[in-house]
Amino acid sequence: MAERSIVVDTTKSPHAKLRPIPISAVKLRDRFWQPRLADLQEVTLPTQYELLEQTGRIDNFRRVAGKVGGEFRGLYFNDSDVYKWIEAAAWSLAVQYNAKVAELINKVIPEIEAAQDEDGYLNTFFSLERKGQRWTNLRDMHELYCAGHLFQAAVAHHRVNGDERLLKVSTRFADLIDKVFGWGKKEEPDGHPEVEMALVELYRETGERRYLDLARFFVDVRGHKRIGGSPYHQDHKPFRELDEVTGHAVRALYLNAGGADLYAEIGDETLMLAMQRMWRNLTEKRIYVTGGCGARYEGEAFGRDYELPNERAYAETCAAIANILWQWRMFLLTGEARFIDVLERSLFNGALSGIGLDGRSYFYVNPLADRGRHRRQPWFECACCPPNIARLLPMVQSFLYAISDEGIFVNLYAESAATLNFKGVPITLVQRNDYPWDGEIELQVQTEKPINFALMLRIPNWCPKATVKVGGQTVDAEPGTFVTVQREWKRTDTVHLSLDMPAEFVVCHPFVEPNGGRIAIQRGPIVYCLEQVDNPEADVWCIAARTDRPLTAIPKSVANLPIIAVQGEGVAVELRHWENSLYQPLRSIATHVRPVRFTAIPYFAWANRDAGPMTVWLQRA
Amino acid sequence: MAERSIVVDTTKSPHAKLRPIPISAVKLRDRFWQPRLADLQEVTLPTQYELLEQTGRIDNFRRVAGKVGGEFRGLYFNDSDVYKWIEAAAWSLAVQYNAKVAELINKVIPEIEAAQDEDGYLNTFFSLERKGQRWTNLRDMHELYCAGHLFQAAVAHHRVNGDERLLKVSTRFADLIDKVFGWGKKEEPDGHPEVEMALVELYRETGERRYLDLARFFVDVRGHKRIGGSPYHQDHKPFRELDEVTGHAVRALYLNAGGADLYAEIGDETLMLAMQRMWRNLTEKRIYVTGGCGARYEGEAFGRDYELPNERAYAETCAAIANILWQWRMFLLTGEARFIDVLERSLFNGALSGIGLDGRSYFYVNPLADRGRHRRQPWFECACCPPNIARLLPMVQSFLYAISDEGIFVNLYAESAATLNFKGVPITLVQRNDYPWDGEIELQVQTEKPINFALMLRIPNWCPKATVKVGGQTVDAEPGTFVTVQREWKRTDTVHLSLDMPAEFVVCHPFVEPNGGRIAIQRGPIVYCLEQVDNPEADVWCIAARTDRPLTAIPKSVANLPIIAVQGEGVAVELRHWENSLYQPLRSIATHVRPVRFTAIPYFAWANRDAGPMTVWLQRA
Repeated sequence: MAERSIVVDTTKSPHAKLRPIPISAVKLRDRFWQPRLADLQEVTLPTQYELLEQTGRIDNFRRVAGKVGGEFRGLYFNDSDVYKWIEAAAWSLAVQYNAKVAELINKVIPEIEAAQDEDGYLNTFFSLERKGQRWTNLRDMHELYCAGHLFQAAVAHHRVNGDERLLKVSTRFADLIDKVFGWGKKEEPDGHPEVEMALVELYRETGERRYLDLARFFVDVRGHKRIGGSPYHQDHKPFRELDEVTGHAVRALYLNAGGADLYAEIGDETLMLAMQRMWRNLTEKRIYVTGGCGARYEGEAFGRDYELPNERAYAETCAAIANILWQWRMFLLTGEARFIDVLERSLFNGALSGIGLDGRSYFYVNPLADRGRHRRQPWFECACCPPNIARLLPMVQSFLYAISDEGIFVNLYAESAATLNFKGVPITLVQRNDYPWDGEIELQVQTEKPINFALMLRIPNWCPKATVKVGGQTVDAEPGTFVTVQREWKRTDTVHLSLDMPAEFVVCHPFVEPNGGRIAIQRGPIVYCLEQVDNPEADVWCIAARTDRPLTAIPKSVANLPIIAVQGEGVAVELRHWENSLYQPLRSIATHVRPVRFTAIPYFAWANRDAGPMTVWLQRA
Repeated sequence: MAERSIVVDTTKSPHAKLRPIPISAVKLRDRFWQPRLADLQEVTLPTQYELLEQTGRIDNFRRVAGKVGGEFRGLYFNDSDVYKWIEAAAWSLAVQYNAKVAELINKVIPEIEAAQDEDGYLNTFFSLERKGQRWTNLRDMHELYCAGHLFQAAVAHHRVNGDERLLKVSTRFADLIDKVFGWGKKEEPDGHPEVEMALVELYRETGERRYLDLARFFVDVRGHKRIGGSPYHQDHKPFRELDEVTGHAVRALYLNAGGADLYAEIGDETLMLAMQRMWRNLTEKRIYVTGGCGARYEGEAFGRDYELPNERAYAETCAAIANILWQWRMFLLTGEARFIDVLERSLFNGALSGIGLDGRSYFYVNPLADRGRHRRQPWFECACCPPNIARLLPMVQSFLYAISDEGIFVNLYAESAATLNFKGVPITLVQRNDYPWDGEIELQVQTEKPINFALMLRIPNWCPKATVKVGGQTVDAEPGTFVTVQREWKRTDTVHLSLDMPAEFVVCHPFVEPNGGRIAIQRGPIVYCLEQVDNPEADVWCIAARTDRPLTAIPKSVANLPIIAVQGEGVAVELRHWENSLYQPLRSIATHVRPVRFTAIPYFAWANRDAGPMTVWLQRA
């Protein structure tokens, strides 16, 4: 069944330009993602399962079924952690079968089945603590949010394993929701979007049109102040009228992902226009250079335009993931490279920083500057992020390619072999490269018999110069687009793609006040930071980079992970001249700087060694 | 009675080194403060009184007395606005008698008297809306906070006018509080400190020792988690153990002012040590360059060390005022110049920005950068700031001098004549200068007969070089200290003090992340900002100052107020190269800068003309 392991199945969606590939189609052989995916099954999923048990999250299901006694434990939306873990585990089996992970899934599914009410309802908090109060506080209690994660887990498990058990639980529950909600019935959305995209996927998996209609209802009923009307809940304006990403960042971006899924099926241009407006607002005014989303602690929310504090950044791991989910869907709808550019930024930086190199510690908040206080934790009371990053990792395989009527899109690069199906013809694509550390990419197209199709190669927008060579031809390559190589492909034709990947200084729009006069460092898709442990010469917050000196890429390892570090030159203020003072006239301090060399590491890899200051944005000497 | 118009009367306090002078001792003739004080009586106090009436704040008192019907209007602590207005009006009469202001005071006092309960209780919200619920929610309901402002108003009015009416109301209420609160009685503090300093002043004014004991009780009962134990309420640790300024900034600094008043009377070193620790924490890690206090919107609170965002600064006007009140008390206790340095910074910048040049519009929040959205308002639902700035202004006169056993301290400079009393001998001090715009200060000591005493002249810490000349002698002058000129003063001896007052660039501790690589501009005690209306050449957020070029001071006027502006040279990024992008490689933007000249105005004067971007911290070219 794993050949159906498609994360967002637009295969038959009338308004999506692209069809995704199954996770199982790709076999990674790279040193970046493959070890992460191995760890996912060996470390991440087992330790998370253990924590789901320890914290009573699975016991809550058993308790509803009367298998164990006692009271509900934890927070009212904890069921969703279990569902997200199942989704993660299911997708991981499409990467690589793993008996232990499969066994854990099989262990937990009966607990969920047994906790479902006669009428299809399923939510352990309401069945235990709020009996008789179903759907009475949609704004705050996440009932439909939990339902959505159940549906997504069920769809994943069904697609990967062909197992119908959770899908049956889901359709029973969805049928109940359909009885309760809709125009002329209960006309309220959930305070936390999620069920919208889940219902579209459930529709795709079951063919049951009512689920699509229900998804549409939940998008349309929002924004009419039926749950208070706050931007925090994206309830201040109808979805089709939105022009900014506002409020709780995860909710806003999940809603947009649901809107994109809905568009794929119903093709209403007002949906697309709203999403295009929000996309511009996000990418031009409200996203971190790391792809992190959500500036404010208050409400885990987007701030105003250009409000992007560094040390007080919120940038929840789940929000970067939500952004990836939205961008992926926008890409499937349009085939436009800009959505993968944004996806890639969030993926390699602001989302990946959410999990430690040990595969078992997590960031909820992802600041861009820190004094050494912020460390990954094994779990959280509100543990949305750990299973979310777990379900993201296997999805990466399916992000590599997509298929249109014209040919094959190559979105992300990674040493791998993939067997795709283009118009019934199996085509194997073998990538040789060391992406994201190196921009030299060899792509071999293997086909039994010659076939004419277009190969769309993504030239990332971070790339200053790219060349594509195939069969002695050189094709022009404009960064931020897909380069089309249309030809009759024979047995082992090879494309050589050369992406210039210099380490570069990046500057920020002058309206982002804290970044005024500062620079960041990026190389390829990787955003860098200075971490104290690599920079014994000076406190990294005191280093100002000399942008007139070159940056040099050098191999290094961070907690045993091989990476490419970037070195540069700068000057450092002597901290001892700052003892006991917060402000000084420039005349007192101007001469107290000394030249230093600095070493920057990938942002995703920070906080895996000794605690100490870190910064993404550096002063400029 | 105005010769008793002493704001914090440490005249007989055993542990205060200095004795303050009455407001009425000083006659300002300067162009900086004097017009503000004239406007205070002509514009500020009458318009505020009108608003107290319009918003029902005075009606609430009438309602308790049965004079008008209807329900309580406004917020539960609105009584305090009326009291603060009375305090402001009373002190203003010590600056200059004004029949209209005196009449308004006389109009409102009977309303307050009539609203007092038989047993002495006085709080219109509890008498109308929460009958029978007195003292049931000390953490949140500001009952003692309101009482404190009543006492301060009463003390001010008594000292300036000799009027006993409010003082009687206050002692009746304080006696009731004394019956209810204390060890073995109700052992809880108020959530909002204020009553502590008020009770010490009430003790000073009445001689009733029980009020001092009660103040001591309210300081000591705090920090034992009797009102929840949060740092927001300064209830997490006993006062004597505090080492950081935490939580709600106004509350924290009012509490410290109360602690200082208590120390003046009882001299407990553990109080002083805690205040010294908090003073270092505040001045070395948590205060804005403008003297603004409180970094966070959440809880109107101090942030962590070095957490000082600019655009999202909270820096409530009341917190800058609270800081002035605390610094003044610390100065009276110690005679140390550093407290006046901090007072001066808050006074001329972060507090004064709280009132518009029209004398009738106010900032509650004082950001250090803005895009043109933040404008002063005529009033607020929570209107703590307007009457607070009104009561601060007349106090300025009393801040100019203080008296010790050795002589006279000259703290602040302003063209004025003051008649002080040193050991029974009247001494007139005539200042000629244009402070804060010019550092040349002439101080004439006029005395009937020769008298030997020390004149302590403050050399501000912002001053790079100062010389003091008297009778042909030149005295060494170290910035950040008082220079002592000890001599026998004759009829019209004149001291010439020359404070170098260059416009200077100021840098910030590298741990204040948003200020990394940036500079501010200061000249004398005045902190400058760039406002768009003066800078047509470029968006002020896009200007980077060239610190290798000189800054020039030039006369200018802002909304008819003559000020000294500062001009400099820099470069500006072209905004058009930033359309549709949030981040760019430096290579794309590096050459798109052009030279500009910029004009900076005093921070206190911003937002009095056309709305537009403003910034205190500039990028450095």
